[in-house]
Amino acid sequence: MQAGTLFYVVGPSGVGKDTLIDEAMKTLGPSGRYVQARRLITRPAGVGEDHEPVSVEAFEALRQEGRFLHHWQAHDLHYGLPIEIVGELEAGRNVLANGSRGAIPDLAGTVDRFVIVEITAPADVVRERLLARGRETPDEIERRLARAVHPLPQDRDVASLVNDTSLEEAVTRLVSILDRYATRLALRRMPIVSAPRHTAYLRQDSAIVDAPAFAGAGRIDITRDDCSVRADVALVEPSKLLRPDEIGLSREAFEALGLPAGALVSIARTPSPKSRTILRRKIAGERLDAGSYETLFGDIVEGRYPDGETAAFLLKAIQSLDADEAIAVAKARCRFGRRIDWGPDIVVDKHSLGGIPGSRITLIVVPIVAAAGLMMPKTSSRAITSAAGTADVMEALCRIDLDACEVARVVRATGGCVAWNGRLNHSVLDDVVNAITRPLALDSNTWSVASILSKKWTAGSTHVVIDMPFGPNAKLKTLEQARDLGRIFERVGAGLGMTVRAFATDGGNAIGNGIGPALELRDVMKILDGAPDAPADLREKALFFATEILSFSPDHANRAKARATAEEILRSGRAKKKLEEIAEAQGKCEPVLPGRFTHVVEAPADGTIGRVDGWHVAGIARRAGAPHDKSAGVNLVAATGQAVGAGEPLYTIHASDIACLERAASEAREQTGITLSSPDTPSSRHRFHPREVSQAPTAT
Amino acid sequence: MQAGTLFYVVGPSGVGKDTLIDEAMKTLGPSGRYVQARRLITRPAGVGEDHEPVSVEAFEALRQEGRFLHHWQAHDLHYGLPIEIVGELEAGRNVLANGSRGAIPDLAGTVDRFVIVEITAPADVVRERLLARGRETPDEIERRLARAVHPLPQDRDVASLVNDTSLEEAVTRLVSILDRYATRLALRRMPIVSAPRHTAYLRQDSAIVDAPAFAGAGRIDITRDDCSVRADVALVEPSKLLRPDEIGLSREAFEALGLPAGALVSIARTPSPKSRTILRRKIAGERLDAGSYETLFGDIVEGRYPDGETAAFLLKAIQSLDADEAIAVAKARCRFGRRIDWGPDIVVDKHSLGGIPGSRITLIVVPIVAAAGLMMPKTSSRAITSAAGTADVMEALCRIDLDACEVARVVRATGGCVAWNGRLNHSVLDDVVNAITRPLALDSNTWSVASILSKKWTAGSTHVVIDMPFGPNAKLKTLEQARDLGRIFERVGAGLGMTVRAFATDGGNAIGNGIGPALELRDVMKILDGAPDAPADLREKALFFATEILSFSPDHANRAKARATAEEILRSGRAKKKLEEIAEAQGKCEPVLPGRFTHVVEAPADGTIGRVDGWHVAGIARRAGAPHDKSAGVNLVAATGQAVGAGEPLYTIHASDIACLERAASEAREQTGITLSSPDTPSSRHRFHPREVSQAPTAT
Repeated sequence: MQAGTLFYVVGPSGVGKDTLIDEAMKTLGPSGRYVQARRLITRPAGVGEDHEPVSVEAFEALRQEGRFLHHWQAHDLHYGLPIEIVGELEAGRNVLANGSRGAIPDLAGTVDRFVIVEITAPADVVRERLLARGRETPDEIERRLARAVHPLPQDRDVASLVNDTSLEEAVTRLVSILDRYATRLALRRMPIVSAPRHTAYLRQDSAIVDAPAFAGAGRIDITRDDCSVRADVALVEPSKLLRPDEIGLSREAFEALGLPAGALVSIARTPSPKSRTILRRKIAGERLDAGSYETLFGDIVEGRYPDGETAAFLLKAIQSLDADEAIAVAKARCRFGRRIDWGPDIVVDKHSLGGIPGSRITLIVVPIVAAAGLMMPKTSSRAITSAAGTADVMEALCRIDLDACEVARVVRATGGCVAWNGRLNHSVLDDVVNAITRPLALDSNTWSVASILSKKWTAGSTHVVIDMPFGPNAKLKTLEQARDLGRIFERVGAGLGMTVRAFATDGGNAIGNGIGPALELRDVMKILDGAPDAPADLREKALFFATEILSFSPDHANRAKARATAEEILRSGRAKKKLEEIAEAQGKCEPVLPGRFTHVVEAPADGTIGRVDGWHVAGIARRAGAPHDKSAGVNLVAATGQAVGAGEPLYTIHASDIACLERAASEAREQTGITLSSPDTPSSRHRFHPREVSQAPTAT
Repeated sequence: MQAGTLFYVVGPSGVGKDTLIDEAMKTLGPSGRYVQARRLITRPAGVGEDHEPVSVEAFEALRQEGRFLHHWQAHDLHYGLPIEIVGELEAGRNVLANGSRGAIPDLAGTVDRFVIVEITAPADVVRERLLARGRETPDEIERRLARAVHPLPQDRDVASLVNDTSLEEAVTRLVSILDRYATRLALRRMPIVSAPRHTAYLRQDSAIVDAPAFAGAGRIDITRDDCSVRADVALVEPSKLLRPDEIGLSREAFEALGLPAGALVSIARTPSPKSRTILRRKIAGERLDAGSYETLFGDIVEGRYPDGETAAFLLKAIQSLDADEAIAVAKARCRFGRRIDWGPDIVVDKHSLGGIPGSRITLIVVPIVAAAGLMMPKTSSRAITSAAGTADVMEALCRIDLDACEVARVVRATGGCVAWNGRLNHSVLDDVVNAITRPLALDSNTWSVASILSKKWTAGSTHVVIDMPFGPNAKLKTLEQARDLGRIFERVGAGLGMTVRAFATDGGNAIGNGIGPALELRDVMKILDGAPDAPADLREKALFFATEILSFSPDHANRAKARATAEEILRSGRAKKKLEEIAEAQGKCEPVLPGRFTHVVEAPADGTIGRVDGWHVAGIARRAGAPHDKSAGVNLVAATGQAVGAGEPLYTIHASDIACLERAASEAREQTGITLSSPDTPSSRHRFHPREVSQAPTAT
């Protein structure tokens, strides 16, 4: 294996090759890692470049003895590169040879690491130098300048240098080019999976790079042309695992780089992030502007910071964030995506902070709003810890894992969609933030406002309503918390040029009867069908948000008229038709029905239904198989405030697997999740009752 | 390679072996990873344990056909373990065999992974079971109980189980023992250096453990007996790098574990730290007490937290730390070390926040104080970025890298010492904190108070003075900052039961003439010798702190008398004698003299010496070779306030290497580091002028 590189320097006479090589060797020679090859030429000493003069007879004898790595003929002279070059390359030394273009195709295959260094200069510069040298007449010089040159091979490494500046600068550039090529390593895929980290492996005794200098804390960038990957470094002791001229990459790093094994790559220490002064300003308690956040986020997402620094920055930023700075964060985030331009002046959206089981209003709101002529490209999440997310419920009806093009097609065709957000607006920054904030149990509500609204902005929304349930088991515990956060939503929205209206809603009770995809879809369908047993609270909440969204449009500025429109669209069946249309466009499937195995949970005593612990009941639904099994879930029969007798049903568990049903039933037997107060305690039926946060004038 | 383990279950009759094996197999069997070996016995079916009955003739035939892995004779019966066991082990399945102790020595060598499971029970329990079984008379049972048992081999893995509880509990324990041994992996040293991280490598297709379940974020503990190491996990694809029954460790991890290659080790996910709730309380802004800090520090130092969580916690703790909580931090830190008990009621110490070049008072204060009869076990640091630390200066005179025993010997013999702190009170927690706070440029002064004082406490000090230089280039910028921090020093000291007195001192100028080990030592010696050209500011500063320290003692309660004592000790030569005595005890070397090559830096114009930029001059001293070359440095000739004429000397650079001298001189030519004001500007000679921070009554 030859660890050394043969640099074959070509370029027309007068371009300054000899001088550049001589000067570069003054810099490179003392390291012992570079040597210059002296050519043997059948020309007397002292003429032209520094060479070994030999007679034609001696040249022929040497050739027959195999003493040349390569030899050629030009201008009636014989040229030869001595075979000793091979020994130098094998010893890990790089060789600079002054060469001729014509010899390249034959020569290139004779050594392992071959780089052509092409030196050029503008014609005027060359002419001047040749005239000054005085070896040729002006005519001969002009003929030389006009001579066509052999093209350089396409499949070889070519480093080009235009010698049109000072000698000192040109030498510096040449040395840097040589060093970059000389330290390239051959890529190898290691049979190691080091995820979530990328790891690069270097032989600690590499003859090509100073491997220990790259190890330790900090990362390196591995690059070739436009491909690049960043990795931690591990050193490999002399062993068969890796050759000294190779760089190994762990599986994912190799795949991320996307180059074939054996490709020659350059390595460099990942520079210390320029944004570190910004990061330190935040640590010291300063406010940052959008530009500073943008720079920092870029470096964080590109993995330029160790975890500790990222965590310290995020903690400080999140805990000190007020509405003004949240606008800066949101603006910075917006700059990482390209905003979708849907066309209409008003593109509406809705976001819920989540936390109440069964509150599946999106599947009612989107079709009402779209049927009224407003555009609503809605994306929703799947359940993480609950029994169903909006995406899970929609999936009981149609495809939801649309890509951006499919979303565009569906929305342009129908005016709305309910697509899974997992494929659409995934944020690497959010991944980093979540990985850090979750174990710390960090309250990051204000930070989330910036994240949520920047995504809405990028998705092209102009008008957004926010549903903020509050209650002991919701993200927001009190009405005050919800109101405070609502104001931040509205201010940050305004900062991004959007109209945002936030509403605090009761998050203490489940809404609707069904908990689990198919059962929640059944509730939705009952409302769209106007069925008499449709859950009134879910219908009311959906109508409330539909009305608020319609009011964004000047066509429905009168809230009472907007409400009437929403009710009419629902009553007339146009909403149902619109949902079917959207489902059809997304890719309709056979609707999933509630599971055929059922178990009725009964009231243990007479009483009045008090609190329905939505989280506990959702847990029972998950035991029954939700959300993975879309047919599984719980259907509430009794509602808050209602009187029940002992043995009367509280809810029904549905499952499509009998063992799952058993597990869920057994959990319900331990605790139903429903509080019964004694029959004589007065209690009122729960009603949907939103609290306006907005400062904007609204009808109440 | 057999990935399966042969569990050879032994124990006296009546101990419950058969029942335990049968019950354990009910739990283990369904996984497909365990099988039970049926023994062939020349005994009819239905008698005793579940076995394969064969005639004596058939047994002999099978034996001749090589159908036994092992066979033996006991109680006139022939026993055989079928050869099929080998196939099971090779297929990665673990085999449970009911065995006889006597067969162990021969059998153990026939399989790769052999574990003896010894089941015992108290004699009463066994007696009762045997009586209930009714196969033997009470006499026979007593004889059986009295029978001596073969001792188990020392060099084999033996897992013991005392079967004296409920069957259910015993089975659970047995299953857990089997699983732990069955999942042991053979240790392999990988030719990989992954420092600063430890990395463990598992084959992703391991037949022994579920390798992918151990990969990803989080670490594993690799243990055997009392040896343990914690590492990140990387998976290895099928390749020669690692066998499926092995665990590879990177070089440092392997060395840290300290076991030979091939040793069988257990692995387990590092448990989530129990202190995480405490960490979250700090993140949420709560104050923590000493006990909470102690728990958290323990988990941090043991590497139980990912870097991000540690960084977030430290940022929050450091930025919210007030004096009260600093006491809690200091107390928590004290609990990690054992306090040295020197004997006397008063053990004094001094700490300087550092930052002024040449301020080498320790080498004067320690001998004065020790000569006065107070005990002062002083440890000091080497230079990190300056031209000399106190330890470097002392090293120009004697050995400083003492261990704890040597320090004790020197202090008990002489009353004092000046030893390098690097070998004595190194703190892993400080390493973690520094690695995180430095890149963040975090102000951690209050945190440092807790760190400094807990180390003094552990070192056995009872009374400590703190020297806090302030100035534009010092750690503390203003007198106010110094005063605030000084109060925290005194309060935290009191919290630990120590008397601490802090003084703000002028950190704007270099003190003394020499900068660099040998030159600073020369200043010290001049003062101890009472030389007329001894630097007055250094002498004054040393006497001030010596006086304050002496005042701690009731013998010197009158500050004026303390001062007189200090001056008398200095004047009489007793201080010089004490320093010689200490140096002798530490191990005296040939004192290093200032370097013989010198270069005089001259005033470029007439003027008055203004500010001496100690940091710039120290930089020149480093160019000259300090602190590595102890003879190198700078000797200031002109002092602040003094008038100089153009061409008159400002300072002399000393070096023992002419090239170093050249480099230093060249840097001084660019910038001397000394400000000259025009001759008519009035300026006063700098005087040492400490500001008392203490609330305690002192003479001024």
